[in-house]
Amino acid sequence: MEETIKSFKALLAKMHAYQHAMGALHYDAETVMPKKGAADFAQSMGVLSEESYKLSTGSEMRELLAKLAPEKDALDEITRREVEELGEQLEKLERIPMEEYVRYSMDTSAAMQVWKAAKNSNDFASFAPHLEKLVAFNRKLPGYLNPDLPKYDALLNEYEKGLTMEMLNGYFAGVRAALVPLIREISECGAQPDASALRASFPIPRQRLLSDRLVSILTIDRERCALGEVEHPFTGGVSKNDVRLTTHYHECDVLSSFFSVVHEGGHALYELNTADELVGSPLGTGASMGIHESQSRLFENMIGRSREFIRLVYPAMAELFPEQMKRVSPELLYRAANRAEPSLIRTEADELTYSLHIMVRYELEKQLIGGALEVSDLPEAWNALYKEYLGVDVPDDMHGVLQDSHWSGGAFGYFPSYSIGSAYAAQIYDAMSRFIDIPATVSSGDLSPIVAWLTERIYRFGMLKKPNELILSACGKPFDSGYYTRYLTQKYRALYNL
Amino acid sequence: MEETIKSFKALLAKMHAYQHAMGALHYDAETVMPKKGAADFAQSMGVLSEESYKLSTGSEMRELLAKLAPEKDALDEITRREVEELGEQLEKLERIPMEEYVRYSMDTSAAMQVWKAAKNSNDFASFAPHLEKLVAFNRKLPGYLNPDLPKYDALLNEYEKGLTMEMLNGYFAGVRAALVPLIREISECGAQPDASALRASFPIPRQRLLSDRLVSILTIDRERCALGEVEHPFTGGVSKNDVRLTTHYHECDVLSSFFSVVHEGGHALYELNTADELVGSPLGTGASMGIHESQSRLFENMIGRSREFIRLVYPAMAELFPEQMKRVSPELLYRAANRAEPSLIRTEADELTYSLHIMVRYELEKQLIGGALEVSDLPEAWNALYKEYLGVDVPDDMHGVLQDSHWSGGAFGYFPSYSIGSAYAAQIYDAMSRFIDIPATVSSGDLSPIVAWLTERIYRFGMLKKPNELILSACGKPFDSGYYTRYLTQKYRALYNL
Repeated sequence: MEETIKSFKALLAKMHAYQHAMGALHYDAETVMPKKGAADFAQSMGVLSEESYKLSTGSEMRELLAKLAPEKDALDEITRREVEELGEQLEKLERIPMEEYVRYSMDTSAAMQVWKAAKNSNDFASFAPHLEKLVAFNRKLPGYLNPDLPKYDALLNEYEKGLTMEMLNGYFAGVRAALVPLIREISECGAQPDASALRASFPIPRQRLLSDRLVSILTIDRERCALGEVEHPFTGGVSKNDVRLTTHYHECDVLSSFFSVVHEGGHALYELNTADELVGSPLGTGASMGIHESQSRLFENMIGRSREFIRLVYPAMAELFPEQMKRVSPELLYRAANRAEPSLIRTEADELTYSLHIMVRYELEKQLIGGALEVSDLPEAWNALYKEYLGVDVPDDMHGVLQDSHWSGGAFGYFPSYSIGSAYAAQIYDAMSRFIDIPATVSSGDLSPIVAWLTERIYRFGMLKKPNELILSACGKPFDSGYYTRYLTQKYRALYNL
Repeated sequence: MEETIKSFKALLAKMHAYQHAMGALHYDAETVMPKKGAADFAQSMGVLSEESYKLSTGSEMRELLAKLAPEKDALDEITRREVEELGEQLEKLERIPMEEYVRYSMDTSAAMQVWKAAKNSNDFASFAPHLEKLVAFNRKLPGYLNPDLPKYDALLNEYEKGLTMEMLNGYFAGVRAALVPLIREISECGAQPDASALRASFPIPRQRLLSDRLVSILTIDRERCALGEVEHPFTGGVSKNDVRLTTHYHECDVLSSFFSVVHEGGHALYELNTADELVGSPLGTGASMGIHESQSRLFENMIGRSREFIRLVYPAMAELFPEQMKRVSPELLYRAANRAEPSLIRTEADELTYSLHIMVRYELEKQLIGGALEVSDLPEAWNALYKEYLGVDVPDDMHGVLQDSHWSGGAFGYFPSYSIGSAYAAQIYDAMSRFIDIPATVSSGDLSPIVAWLTERIYRFGMLKKPNELILSACGKPFDSGYYTRYLTQKYRALYNL
């Protein structure tokens, strides 16, 4: 048994090496790779993912799991969960034909590059054939993953175990009932803050310095975390010792990168604070996409957009942008950072209307995967739903259906975890409040007690606990989306004096 | 046969994917990887190099080569040379035990990281145990590579086929005879340019803009070439569509990055202009290290340090650094860029004394590999030779034995190719002069005729021709180091009015 465990761990180390290489290559492709290197990159990723696939489904892995699975209860906790997770993945992967898997991996690499150009040139037509390939695969994929589930449920399950259309239909109905009237009240009260003073030029080199300050306030260790610039921010890397946080800069919108850094910073903190014992293990990452998003949302919105955080960062902004900040008080900055108004771009959307952006994508994905919608009809359907849910007119695909990277990476079923993540965050914040005076801690400038609490209750476990187990143990009760709607209602009623 | 060739090309494509991945990871590690990611990086490189090793020496490759080698004369030129090169590599690699190869690859990754820290903290002792491992392997390696050759000759042969200690002893004797008296004459004439006006602060963001201008003057396509910042500049990437040029910036020495960019630019031009037919082939790179260095030296010294190039770039410098350049005329800049004086740092050495820096390393490597010198005695031996050849006192290891990255990467036998490269460059420049008025072309600001001539005669062939064949076909006669010594003598006699 000891020999078997040793071989199993050696194989995991090798798999980790491939994951690490692909993570670094992906970051490289997004940050520094010259444009015409795309074909070589796609070729390399195809070969590496093929090899990685072979390792996780090959005869060696199968034999090791066959020996270890029956002895599960005698294994230490980490090894037991590794055997469970890999067994599940193996079952799943075994059902996906390898040529299709490799082809799909190369297709997503290529699609990602085309999407970037298409977005910049507002050219959906050039991206459509690539997207069609990815959609075709994702209509087929559920049959491999779990033929008993409705197709889209099988995809949702990849990002958040157990999540279903039935649950989401109910969840979104609740969110809609609480928020839509509130959003209307806000629109009608006409009490928007005058944020025109923030429409100034904030030179990008200085914004980079602000990012450094924010990352430092978040207690992020720069010796384990790089900070890169990309089209569409993400947090990458596959080891707690090498995390890649990214942002984007817009000279005339300093808050865009500000909250992008704090959002990705939440993701990074999760990765950076998994237990040392999980280094090199496939369990050494977040429990699920939803739990991961709960951390980015918690930091971006509940902490980052709090009055205390804004007051904490204000002096740095005043120092970096003395002219620009002259007419911006801390209170105005707070109000501007929390301005709620229906808009076009998800990543720039405010906290209150954000879930409506997700609802658009949720509805479209359900239809795309279910076969009720084709790629060629997507821009029109997108624009119609934005009009219906958010009341806005989409002027072009660049500000519409081409805005997100997710579909170009083949991530169908991911979007709902953003919204679920916000709901988790509200419940986690409430639980943490019973131990820590969060506003006072933020005001002190030392966020380490917050990070320590989250590490103790959530981060350190990596994938050892499942999402529902984590919520239960961290919060003392099962998931309840009421925290989210109550939090938003209370915050925005106060903000707008309703 | 057609089927065999198809399988052979598919295997080459797979090998290329690994080479590409390792090239991109190496660049990533040098430019953006957070410090504590080093262990994960070493692990990944170990796994990828193991896999790459398996592909080039595995049964599939052996079988394919066994089928193709006897039919060599019936193959197209590219495939024939691929079969030759890979057959040679296979023979060689088969003699290196795989565990040792993998271990060595991981050792070099680790050593590279330690070297960086050791150099910064002037701590040779921390680097010594790593270097000892690498030296031990490189004393053993010649026995695997070619047991019939003297050990160091076998290593030289890896970088420049056919180069021997016998040749180098003669070559360096010639260089010494021509240059040492000249360098003494210059020192004694006391006619150094007063370059104190250049000892100003040149802000790094502006130096970055200067790099962009230089890269553009060199006709480098930025859509196929990235520009990164590292401790020790190099040119990486393994495809003509994805080249990575790097430099380093020192705020108080604008010429350091200037000539680093032009030097690496020469390497990049070579890679960028190999034939399209060689994309994805192992032949799609430079013919040898010496030929590669001939291009970096040709651009750095013969073109970059010419009066015409300095005058061409001067307006951009005056625009980017108006205050600093006020007291610097084009002629002073030219004289300062060509100031000859013995110094400590190879990469900052002038064109005239450069080969003496190489002689130090050549003598030490001969002794280290031959067993006449141990790592522990290296700093002392280094300092003694610098005193003997260059007449300078080495104040610390940071400015001495720790200055170069090469040994930390296991590249023993590489240094001589730098000096041989300069000698090739002088002969190539002479040949090109018979077709192109090089100074007039540089003055015109459009260097494309120069790049076109070099592409036609050298670049496009990649590794299709061997170094001696290339020199013969490009220059019309075999290698002759007299061009080099004559060129230097003439240039520096004129510069110093001797």
